Amino acid sequence: MRLFTYWRSSASYRARIALNLKGLAYHSVPVNLVRDGGEQNRPDYLSRNPQALVPTLEVDGMPLTQSLAIMEWLEETYPQPPLLPREPRERARVRAFALAIACEIAPLSNLAVRRYLNDPLGITEAAQAAWHQHWLARGLSACEAMIASGEGPFCFGTSPTMADCTLVPQLYNARRFGHDLAPYPTLLRAEAAMLALPAVQAAAPEAQADAA
Amino acid sequence: MRLFTYWRSSASYRARIALNLKGLAYHSVPVNLVRDGGEQNRPDYLSRNPQALVPTLEVDGMPLTQSLAIMEWLEETYPQPPLLPREPRERARVRAFALAIACEIAPLSNLAVRRYLNDPLGITEAAQAAWHQHWLARGLSACEAMIASGEGPFCFGTSPTMADCTLVPQLYNARRFGHDLAPYPTLLRAEAAMLALPAVQAAAPEAQADAA
Repeated sequence: MRLFTYWRSSASYRARIALNLKGLAYHSVPVNLVRDGGEQNRPDYLSRNPQALVPTLEVDGMPLTQSLAIMEWLEETYPQPPLLPREPRERARVRAFALAIACEIAPLSNLAVRRYLNDPLGITEAAQAAWHQHWLARGLSACEAMIASGEGPFCFGTSPTMADCTLVPQLYNARRFGHDLAPYPTLLRAEAAMLALPAVQAAAPEAQADAA
Repeated sequence: MRLFTYWRSSASYRARIALNLKGLAYHSVPVNLVRDGGEQNRPDYLSRNPQALVPTLEVDGMPLTQSLAIMEWLEETYPQPPLLPREPRERARVRAFALAIACEIAPLSNLAVRRYLNDPLGITEAAQAAWHQHWLARGLSACEAMIASGEGPFCFGTSPTMADCTLVPQLYNARRFGHDLAPYPTLLRAEAAMLALPAVQAAAPEAQADAA
């Protein structure tokens, strides 16, 4: 398997965590999103990933895209250790948490949106900072409420799930924007449990060969 | 089952299509997103859905949120007719398509974002229109490329999947913004196949009791 990845992309980070938790070996292919107009926009990459996004997981030459779909594929193909509970309603709660990050937080601070806020919108740096804080606060508060009644230490119990694989990169991203994480003790507890795992440590942005 | 829904919400529309395709009866509970500050912000609704979003599917009193997670739950609980192919890589392609809409198109034109563009950003009506066209063009072009090689008539073959359940509401939404759909013939073919189904027709925004 080959993972097309960028060290600081939170979606790539999700996929790396899931691959490592499953104990799967893969070959990393760095895609530099910022150099020379972005390697993700080159025709050979677009043929794999028409969205021009990372990650792409290539399996026997077939490209799989979208980090949450990649995690589901990993779960179906390599069931151990599981990244979803067994009971359907519990699975639904895990997926809803991951989607709350992937659909309502991450899309509003990704590279393409950050560029659009600059040009053509041309909004001030202060207004851009406020934009990011707004969506982070709104989204992370909801995520905290979604798991606050749980016993932990992970988002949904005593072992990592797709929820945790999605949470860790989102909190990494929130720190990049200087967001105060104190209001989210349950999220921080889950993050700490994840970051104690060597598999998660090996997936960290700074541990990647393409880290700048 | 009770579905908390708003007629024009594209995420609610996805869930309604999936429920109808599965042939499941449910009770609709309208949540008016625009009246009196939004019923989704009331404490009793927030206790079900901390994100203050629709839809929520309540099953035996337990709330399930996020339309894609709801569809996965439906698929696991009521497997017939299937909304995912059987082969894991094909399932991954369907999910990636649905996520390309749910993560990269819909989040940039939802009610909360539209409001923020108005206040505090205060960007002009023309700039807001350009914002929507930009993300629609970028996102729908990628979606078209993701399925253009398929035989159809649905997004991924001869029967509807979660991809089609997500596509139909997104094209409905694109028309609200006056987006030109001519560049997406494969998407339009899939939409036409879906709209020919009574189950999909019954899920349409205008067919809902709360349609204004």
